[in-house]
Amino acid sequence: MKVTALAGGIGAAKLLVGLAAVMPAEDITVIVNTGDDIELYGLRICPDIDTVIYTLAGIVNQETGWGIAGDTFEALKRLAEYGEPAWFNLGDRDLATHIYRTARLSDGWTLSRVTDHLRRSLGVSARVLPMTDDYAPTRVETDEGEMHLQEYFVRRRCEPRVRRVLLDQAEAAPAAPEVEDALRSADAVIVCPSNPMISIGPILAVGGVSQALRESRATVAAVTPIIGGRALKGPAAEMLRDLGHAVSAAGVAALYCDFVDLFVLDQTDAALAPEIEKLGVRTLVTNTVMTSVKDKAGLARIVLDSVTSGTAEGSGR
Amino acid sequence: MKVTALAGGIGAAKLLVGLAAVMPAEDITVIVNTGDDIELYGLRICPDIDTVIYTLAGIVNQETGWGIAGDTFEALKRLAEYGEPAWFNLGDRDLATHIYRTARLSDGWTLSRVTDHLRRSLGVSARVLPMTDDYAPTRVETDEGEMHLQEYFVRRRCEPRVRRVLLDQAEAAPAAPEVEDALRSADAVIVCPSNPMISIGPILAVGGVSQALRESRATVAAVTPIIGGRALKGPAAEMLRDLGHAVSAAGVAALYCDFVDLFVLDQTDAALAPEIEKLGVRTLVTNTVMTSVKDKAGLARIVLDSVTSGTAEGSGR
Repeated sequence: MKVTALAGGIGAAKLLVGLAAVMPAEDITVIVNTGDDIELYGLRICPDIDTVIYTLAGIVNQETGWGIAGDTFEALKRLAEYGEPAWFNLGDRDLATHIYRTARLSDGWTLSRVTDHLRRSLGVSARVLPMTDDYAPTRVETDEGEMHLQEYFVRRRCEPRVRRVLLDQAEAAPAAPEVEDALRSADAVIVCPSNPMISIGPILAVGGVSQALRESRATVAAVTPIIGGRALKGPAAEMLRDLGHAVSAAGVAALYCDFVDLFVLDQTDAALAPEIEKLGVRTLVTNTVMTSVKDKAGLARIVLDSVTSGTAEGSGR
Repeated sequence: MKVTALAGGIGAAKLLVGLAAVMPAEDITVIVNTGDDIELYGLRICPDIDTVIYTLAGIVNQETGWGIAGDTFEALKRLAEYGEPAWFNLGDRDLATHIYRTARLSDGWTLSRVTDHLRRSLGVSARVLPMTDDYAPTRVETDEGEMHLQEYFVRRRCEPRVRRVLLDQAEAAPAAPEVEDALRSADAVIVCPSNPMISIGPILAVGGVSQALRESRATVAAVTPIIGGRALKGPAAEMLRDLGHAVSAAGVAALYCDFVDLFVLDQTDAALAPEIEKLGVRTLVTNTVMTSVKDKAGLARIVLDSVTSGTAEGSGR
C-alpha cells in the first residue's frame, strides 16, 4: 500500500514516525509545507522539511520538536555579535543543513533534489517532497501589519492578531515534479495533525495539488490538530479564532470536508463526531495525543486500518 | 606616525599585535592578502583577513594561529555527512564570519566594507583592508597539476612541488579603494614576516600596489619570514627551494630589494647581513622569533625605531 502524507512540522513528524513503524517506510511519501521557508543570512531555511527529516532520522531535539538533539548555538551567537538578527534559532549542526541546501540551490539543484539528498544522507527511507520547488513563503496580514509567517510565529511569538493568511505565492507556484503523481497514485492520503491554515493550507494552495487530490483514487484521512479546543503546539487555535472558524476539531473538519473522506478526532472530542459527520465526512474517534512511540504507531495503525477497511472503527456513527 | 603593513596570516598577525602594543592602533592600516581566499559550500572564506582580525581581537586560537579559540566543529562534521569535502577546517564560530561575509557580499557590499564591519564588531582598532575587493585566488602550478592555493596548502599539505605561483587574477584585479592611499600616505610601510610568494607576492601583484609603494614617501621595512633557513610556519622554505630562490633571509631580501629600504633579519642569520646589504638594502639584526607578547612588542618597537631614525640599530653594517 502506498501512503502519501501532507505534512507541516512537529505534529506531522510524530505521526510519520508512527507510520514508518507500522508499514514499509519506502512506501510512504511525505509532501511537506514549504510556506514557512525563510531566507536568513543568505541561507535558505526550510523548517518543516527539516523537522520531518530530522524526526524520521531520529536526530530531532525531542524537547523542542525542531532542530537537532544536542545542538550548540555558537555560530548564531557570533552572528548576533556582527549585528545580525538572531530571533530564529539555528543550531550549529542545523546550520550545516542550510549551508548545504543553499550551496546546492545555488548550483542549480531543485529543492526536491536537495531534500532527497538530505533525507538519504540521514538514512530516512520515506520519500520527502517539498510541496513546490519555488520559494513561496506564506505571509500573514495582522493587526500590526503584514509580515513573513516566521516573523509572526517566531519573532513575534504569535502575538499579533491574524486577519488573513496570504498564500498568493503558493498559489502562483507549481507543485514539485513528483507531488501530483504521489497524490494520484496513492492508496491513502493522510493529512497530518498540522496547522490547517499555515501548514496544510499552503500545500493545498500550490498549483495542481487540490485537483490531484480530488482526482486521486485514494481514501483521504485527516488527523485533527485540535484537541479539546487547543493545539498541542503552535498557534492553530488562535488562528482559527482570529480567522472566524470554530476553535475545535469540527472547525478543522469544516475546512477539510471538501476533500477528506475520514476525519480522525480525539476521544476528548467524541461529542463532536455527529457534527462532523453532518459535513459528509466519516469520523474515527481515538487517542490522537502522541507522546510515546507506541502512541504514534498506535494512531498510525488505527488510521491505516480505518482507511483500508473503508469502515470507521470506533466511529461516532 | 602612520604605519601601513602588508600582511599574510599567522606570522603577520603576531607582528601586528606587537605594533598595536607600541603605537596607537588607529594609526595602523593593514593591507591583507586575499589570494588565499576560497569559496566552499557557497561561502566566501578569507583566511588571512580572518587570522589578522581574530588575532588583533584577541580571540584567535593560539595553538593553531588560525580560527577562533575554543571553537567547535559540529557544522563541518555534518557537512561531511552530507558528502561535502571537509578538508578545510571551519569551526562553528568561524562559520558565522563566512556566513556573514557571504550574505553581505550578496547584498552588494564590497569586501572592504564587510571587512571593516567585521573588525569593528570584534573591537579591532587597526584599519584592515583586503588587497582587492575582487575575488582573485592564487593558483599554483605543481608537479601534480594546477590547483587552488588552498588545495596545495591545506588539502595536499604542501606535498606537491610548486613550479610556478599563478598570480594572473591578482594582476587583473584593482587594489581596493583605500589601499593605494594607505601606501602613499604612510610614514612607514612594514612588510610582515609572511610567505613572499603566496602572501606578499599577491598583494604586490594587485594593480596599483607596486607603483604606490615605489611612489610612497614611506620608509619600507621587511621582516624576514625565514630564520636559519626555515619558516616558523607554512611552506615558505619549500617554495623558495622549489622556485629556485636561496632558502634564506638573503633569498627573501633579494625578492624584496627593489622596494625595501630596510630588511630585518634574525640574529641567527647575522652572518647574512653583508650579503643583503650588497643588494642596496639596510639591515637590522635582532630577535625575530615572536612567542610572547613581549617578543612581539619588542620586535615592533625596534623596527619602528629603526624606520623612523633612518639608522639601522644593531645593523650588520
